[in-house]
Amino acid sequence: MELKVQPIDIHVGKYKVILNSIDAKELGVYEGDRVRVTGHITVTAIVDFTDDLIPPGMIGLYHEIKEDLKREWTEIVKVEPAEKPRSARIIRKIMDRNKLEQDEIHELVKDIVEENLSEIEIAAFLASSYINDMTDDETEWLTRAMIDTGEKLEFNSSPIMDKHSIGGVPGNKISLLIVPIVAANGLLIPKTSSRAITGAAGTADLMEVLAPVEFSSAEVKEMTEKVGGVLVWGGATNIAPADDKLIKVEYPLSIDPHCQMLASIMAKKGAVGATHVVMDIPTGPGTKIKNIHEGRKLSRDLINLGERLGMNVDCALTYGASPVGRTVGPALEVREALKVLETMEGPNSLIEKSTVLAGMLLEMGGAASPGQGQELALETLRNGKALAKMKEIIEVQGGDPNVSYKDIQPGEFTADLVSPATGYVIEFRNKRIVQIARVAGAPNDKGAGVLIHKKHGEVVKKGEPILTIYADKEKKLEDALKNAQRDLPIVVEGMLLEKVPSIREI
Amino acid sequence: MELKVQPIDIHVGKYKVILNSIDAKELGVYEGDRVRVTGHITVTAIVDFTDDLIPPGMIGLYHEIKEDLKREWTEIVKVEPAEKPRSARIIRKIMDRNKLEQDEIHELVKDIVEENLSEIEIAAFLASSYINDMTDDETEWLTRAMIDTGEKLEFNSSPIMDKHSIGGVPGNKISLLIVPIVAANGLLIPKTSSRAITGAAGTADLMEVLAPVEFSSAEVKEMTEKVGGVLVWGGATNIAPADDKLIKVEYPLSIDPHCQMLASIMAKKGAVGATHVVMDIPTGPGTKIKNIHEGRKLSRDLINLGERLGMNVDCALTYGASPVGRTVGPALEVREALKVLETMEGPNSLIEKSTVLAGMLLEMGGAASPGQGQELALETLRNGKALAKMKEIIEVQGGDPNVSYKDIQPGEFTADLVSPATGYVIEFRNKRIVQIARVAGAPNDKGAGVLIHKKHGEVVKKGEPILTIYADKEKKLEDALKNAQRDLPIVVEGMLLEKVPSIREI
Repeated sequence: MELKVQPIDIHVGKYKVILNSIDAKELGVYEGDRVRVTGHITVTAIVDFTDDLIPPGMIGLYHEIKEDLKREWTEIVKVEPAEKPRSARIIRKIMDRNKLEQDEIHELVKDIVEENLSEIEIAAFLASSYINDMTDDETEWLTRAMIDTGEKLEFNSSPIMDKHSIGGVPGNKISLLIVPIVAANGLLIPKTSSRAITGAAGTADLMEVLAPVEFSSAEVKEMTEKVGGVLVWGGATNIAPADDKLIKVEYPLSIDPHCQMLASIMAKKGAVGATHVVMDIPTGPGTKIKNIHEGRKLSRDLINLGERLGMNVDCALTYGASPVGRTVGPALEVREALKVLETMEGPNSLIEKSTVLAGMLLEMGGAASPGQGQELALETLRNGKALAKMKEIIEVQGGDPNVSYKDIQPGEFTADLVSPATGYVIEFRNKRIVQIARVAGAPNDKGAGVLIHKKHGEVVKKGEPILTIYADKEKKLEDALKNAQRDLPIVVEGMLLEKVPSIREI
Repeated sequence: MELKVQPIDIHVGKYKVILNSIDAKELGVYEGDRVRVTGHITVTAIVDFTDDLIPPGMIGLYHEIKEDLKREWTEIVKVEPAEKPRSARIIRKIMDRNKLEQDEIHELVKDIVEENLSEIEIAAFLASSYINDMTDDETEWLTRAMIDTGEKLEFNSSPIMDKHSIGGVPGNKISLLIVPIVAANGLLIPKTSSRAITGAAGTADLMEVLAPVEFSSAEVKEMTEKVGGVLVWGGATNIAPADDKLIKVEYPLSIDPHCQMLASIMAKKGAVGATHVVMDIPTGPGTKIKNIHEGRKLSRDLINLGERLGMNVDCALTYGASPVGRTVGPALEVREALKVLETMEGPNSLIEKSTVLAGMLLEMGGAASPGQGQELALETLRNGKALAKMKEIIEVQGGDPNVSYKDIQPGEFTADLVSPATGYVIEFRNKRIVQIARVAGAPNDKGAGVLIHKKHGEVVKKGEPILTIYADKEKKLEDALKNAQRDLPIVVEGMLLEKVPSIREI
């Protein structure tokens, strides 16, 4: 069938076209079917239907296919029904609990990256992976496929250091300290990070307060070779691109299949050429890893997968029941981290965690003797070398190297949440802190966030502020305050929790 | 956030809206998230993103939400992030292999019917159901939920008869004979049918050659009470509407979870108030049910589910390795069935199968004594009562009751496929016959299809036609003939398959 082209600028994240229902019926295609569209070149796309938007005789091309075909268009294209890709049958094989071959996993990941699979198909793949999990072989092949279907950094020297946090703890701004400490000691650390999806600020959201974070893979390599380290957004590179596409489907399902999580973490490390990696695994209620046993299990899996891929992986189970430092939200967190770099003043939880993990990397990379890593990390903070390196990193990424923590202003609208009682903070709810910061505008509004005055175990008087909410917009501040008051993120009790009389009154 | 409304006529099969990426970021919503849209009334919708189609400050409403809100629009609507519906968490529970409660299954089905779940969520539900299946309790609750979330026919009299074919065998036009035979004997049979999705013609596609098939539930009831039976398209009623919505996601995944299949069949029977049902279960290579053991298992499951729902279910395992009769495709099949009604002349497979199943219904409904059903069915054909009843049914549905099989013309473009050898038909490939009929234009082109001259076991001479392809359009005939020649649907061999010499030459 020959149809006239009409572009439609809607992002559907796929190669998709839209046909009038009459033409679709005539072609014999049904929802979720594919057509082959031939102009100067031939592409395969998934079909949507309309009764009115596109008249019979025309074909609508959604954003993605329109963009990719821009220079190849002909007014009239030939449209015919197409078979499902082989990877659709591979997904069926997973649902039937059959083990996959390496080439099948590669083809599946390739089709995900090239947008040849619909959301329905990817959802079925993820649900199946979540229910049935994968063998060690399959997880290794999945990781290799995720690496091989994207760009790779290839450095001439080694070791290449890297660090990853599993997430789940708010205020985890430690990469802003670890990267300059490690790079200041002569090791290369090309750190790619994510933006927050459900959190209040990812490392990329933080670094963006100080400098641009969107670079190509080639630029990441060049900058790393120049100053030793970078802090960039992984999503702007084409490193392990399958990951982002999977997350778009995992997110609405609120699942993170174990094999996917392992593959996604390790693919991003493998693709930047990392030889030595430290994993930060926040553990405890409110984090992804509920207890130390789960943390140990995850550590073994990561170390095992690292071995299969030729990477040295060390894991650190870290305290995750309370935020790292006292700030949550982009500007607030950056100010707190920069202040530590400039003055060595700041929350102990932040300095301690950053230097322990940086120390592990320094030892793994041979910059410190065994057992001396944390001391070298602290020394690198104290002698100003970490600050100097951070300024180099900011400069190479195009930010202002003369920035001081004093310049970083959080949101102009603020409100205090006060303690309803005198006593101790006996419960600290991470997820509520993140929710409040998000309602206040984080991570999109850089000034939005939460400053925590009282942490777990601390004494507080009735009426004293327990936290301050910051926002860039007055309306959002109001919403966040209301949200916070409705269900307090911190529970305060006297030491006496309940009186149980020794003689019951009858 | 307040946004100006802009309608977008694309059918997405969901309550969906489209936001400019800038507004979406500001709202803190991500792919697959939902927003609450408040004008005169409030609805919840899933969000898509655009950079250009919808400018910041506006919100695009896709077809479904636009239609439903038509009279409720305000120029400006309030838009805020919304929580996922409870059923999204219920799907997660299924993925975690937890058993569901009845109210959870009801809520899930209700959200599917009301378009509150995304395709990603429904795909995860179906993949999980396929992998983990459901308990008998859950399957019963699923069926009840599918009945209760749609319209129901409530007849004042009983019994109400019904019949269902599991599908998978081409040319299965038996309902065109069974319904008038049963109704002619004083029993009510409100038969709702489907259109073909992957087949060459569903019963609704067939009946449409003779009369309109799209009616409301109330009309179906009224017509059934008037003439005893109907042959309508179930998709036009609001009977068990969840089924169609699930099929839209099952189809691209090529799965039909066992519990879903049971629930979908029985919900449609339960919703029309059926008290006695005969199930036609075509069995054999190329059908859905590979062998008699699978067929017996399915029969037990259907009978068991029927008991739980208060329905009498009888199952018939039928021969499925070859088409029923000698025609495949709407007009050809209708002509063949009408000819049997008018003259009692026609393929034995069609007359035999139709009267056996009609006979079972006549016995179940008390119109025939045990063991006398098929004879009564044959008699009803012979004495013209079935033909007279069919004319009443055609008339009540708005067709021409004076139609004769001679009036039904198949496609004007025809081509013969001839036998490449002299011998016997030793293999008959149902799926290829269906493919050829579809390439020729079936089921959309009513005249398209395949007339089968030689069936399994029959003798054929080299050069003799084994089948004739019909099409309404010349181009489609060419495509179908090419398709047929590329990979013959029928294998012909001499009786001597291979010579094995008793003394091997060395």
